[in-house]
Amino acid sequence: MSRPVILLGAGGHAKVVLEILRQIKQPVLGVIDPRLKQNHIKEWQGLPILGDDSDVSLYPTDKIFLANGIGSLPGQTLRCSVYRQFKSSGYTFITLVHPTAIIAEDITLAEGVQIMAGCILGTDVQIDENTLINTGTQLDHDCKVGKHCHLAPAVVLCGNVQVEDGCHLGPSSCVVQGCHLGQGAVLGAGSTLLCDLPKGHKYLAAKSQQPTKHSQ
Amino acid sequence: MSRPVILLGAGGHAKVVLEILRQIKQPVLGVIDPRLKQNHIKEWQGLPILGDDSDVSLYPTDKIFLANGIGSLPGQTLRCSVYRQFKSSGYTFITLVHPTAIIAEDITLAEGVQIMAGCILGTDVQIDENTLINTGTQLDHDCKVGKHCHLAPAVVLCGNVQVEDGCHLGPSSCVVQGCHLGQGAVLGAGSTLLCDLPKGHKYLAAKSQQPTKHSQ
Amino acid sequence: MSRPVILLGAGGHAKVVLEILRQIKQPVLGVIDPRLKQNHIKEWQGLPILGDDSDVSLYPTDKIFLANGIGSLPGQTLRCSVYRQFKSSGYTFITLVHPTAIIAEDITLAEGVQIMAGCILGTDVQIDENTLINTGTQLDHDCKVGKHCHLAPAVVLCGNVQVEDGCHLGPSSCVVQGCHLGQGAVLGAGSTLLCDLPKGHKYLAAKSQQPTKHSQ
Repeated sequence: MSRPVILLGAGGHAKVVLEILRQIKQPVLGVIDPRLKQNHIKEWQGLPILGDDSDVSLYPTDKIFLANGIGSLPGQTLRCSVYRQFKSSGYTFITLVHPTAIIAEDITLAEGVQIMAGCILGTDVQIDENTLINTGTQLDHDCKVGKHCHLAPAVVLCGNVQVEDGCHLGPSSCVVQGCHLGQGAVLGAGSTLLCDLPKGHKYLAAKSQQPTKHSQ
Repeated sequence: MSRPVILLGAGGHAKVVLEILRQIKQPVLGVIDPRLKQNHIKEWQGLPILGDDSDVSLYPTDKIFLANGIGSLPGQTLRCSVYRQFKSSGYTFITLVHPTAIIAEDITLAEGVQIMAGCILGTDVQIDENTLINTGTQLDHDCKVGKHCHLAPAVVLCGNVQVEDGCHLGPSSCVVQGCHLGQGAVLGAGSTLLCDLPKGHKYLAAKSQQPTKHSQ
Repeated sequence: MSRPVILLGAGGHAKVVLEILRQIKQPVLGVIDPRLKQNHIKEWQGLPILGDDSDVSLYPTDKIFLANGIGSLPGQTLRCSVYRQFKSSGYTFITLVHPTAIIAEDITLAEGVQIMAGCILGTDVQIDENTLINTGTQLDHDCKVGKHCHLAPAVVLCGNVQVEDGCHLGPSSCVVQGCHLGQGAVLGAGSTLLCDLPKGHKYLAAKSQQPTKHSQ
């Protein structure tokens, strides 16, 4: 597992991925980012810019790992399509777990899964390819999460929750025990899901009160 | 404190309790579960099935500890009644703290309390018998929680909150500083309590918006 | 950085600050608290009562640090005014980070910042003077928080959130990525902010359902 890593993307999520790579002392060759190449920028966060997506082919598929530094919001497909494109070219994505994450011994993490700082994953949790479990998110016992999902910061899944492929769970959302989220389902920030959510559906929190000027 | 443990129950919560017992290297004799005995199942999670509740009496009260592996939802009484039954027979329940929990030095945990992974307990917190503080839940300074309560995953108690016996606080619920929850009170998942809640009352979060099909 | 510390205040927050000082083995000379002095109380939490604010002047500004043990709620100004008063007299406030906090290497914490147990601060986070980041609060990459703010327990800031001076974010509130909170803005407990909040405005969560007596 000691191949050097090429980081795809140079935005906010890429910075957080780079922090994990440095914490676990994984050597990083450089960064792939079309915009930075186009703007003739040579360096980012102390790493060389290696070019755009086409430049990855200069590196043999069995000599490097890729790290997906592209974030994800509802409606965005880039994180997923970049993963699929490089997988079809034969590359391997590194699976990353921040050293501060609390991980039961028997969990299963597929290729390219990213577990960020302070996450808690309980016994028998399973997470499929390229899924991003963001900062401080917790999954209780027996949760299963599909491919290409994003669980945003501070999401809470109680025990035995099933999340199908391509779901987006917004920050501070919560799913009670045993619920099922169909493919591509979207949970809004701060929402609490008490029942199943069908494929392709979204579920938003109650509308907040209007902001008002306070007396201070 | 080095007596071996018998685990009561073989469901989801029991798996999480077993994970703590293994992390702290506590020897476990086996599991008590009426359904598994009835179905002639001999093993669960690598442990022998020792029988049903009546089979516990084969073990002297001063040679073993019991661990309560029964979970708890509002309206369920099994976790509490099993605890009371075996206490009246003279048994002792082990108090469990997951090694990753953040615990101030001066907290007080009564018999059978269970503190799961990633919890944070501030200075002068007191928790009474058989209460379950579930994954990632945090109690700030001077909180007091009674007997037979369940604080579900990711509950937040600010400073000086008082929770009487038999309360259930749903996942991701929050209680602001200084509030009091009367006996048997229930907080819904994702709710935020800003005032006292009387004995036997429940308090639910605002109703969410209806799920809708999204355009993706 | 090995000067002894004088703790200002003797309430709930002061206890939590003292717990950090003891965990990091910082010597503490005693406590300043007008009420305790007035009541002729000599000791608090094992520390001597040194007097009221005027008694701080007995200690040279270059021989001690101060620790701000005064908490903060919306509309309260004491924590801020005490800080300013002693700064103008030439004193220095110690910056405190609980040893269990998860802190990226490149964050910037100004004088007097307090980071409580279990917080998570991502890469390039910046926090300005006298701001209190309370228990279990998490700030993702590139968040900036101004002076004299209080982020209550379990607040969640997604990436790139900007919080101006003097804001109060209630417990379990959440701000999605990229939002801006103007000076003195207030977020209610359990609220989820999806857009910018102007200077001097407050934003409250949706009203919960009325408590009802349940059938148990």
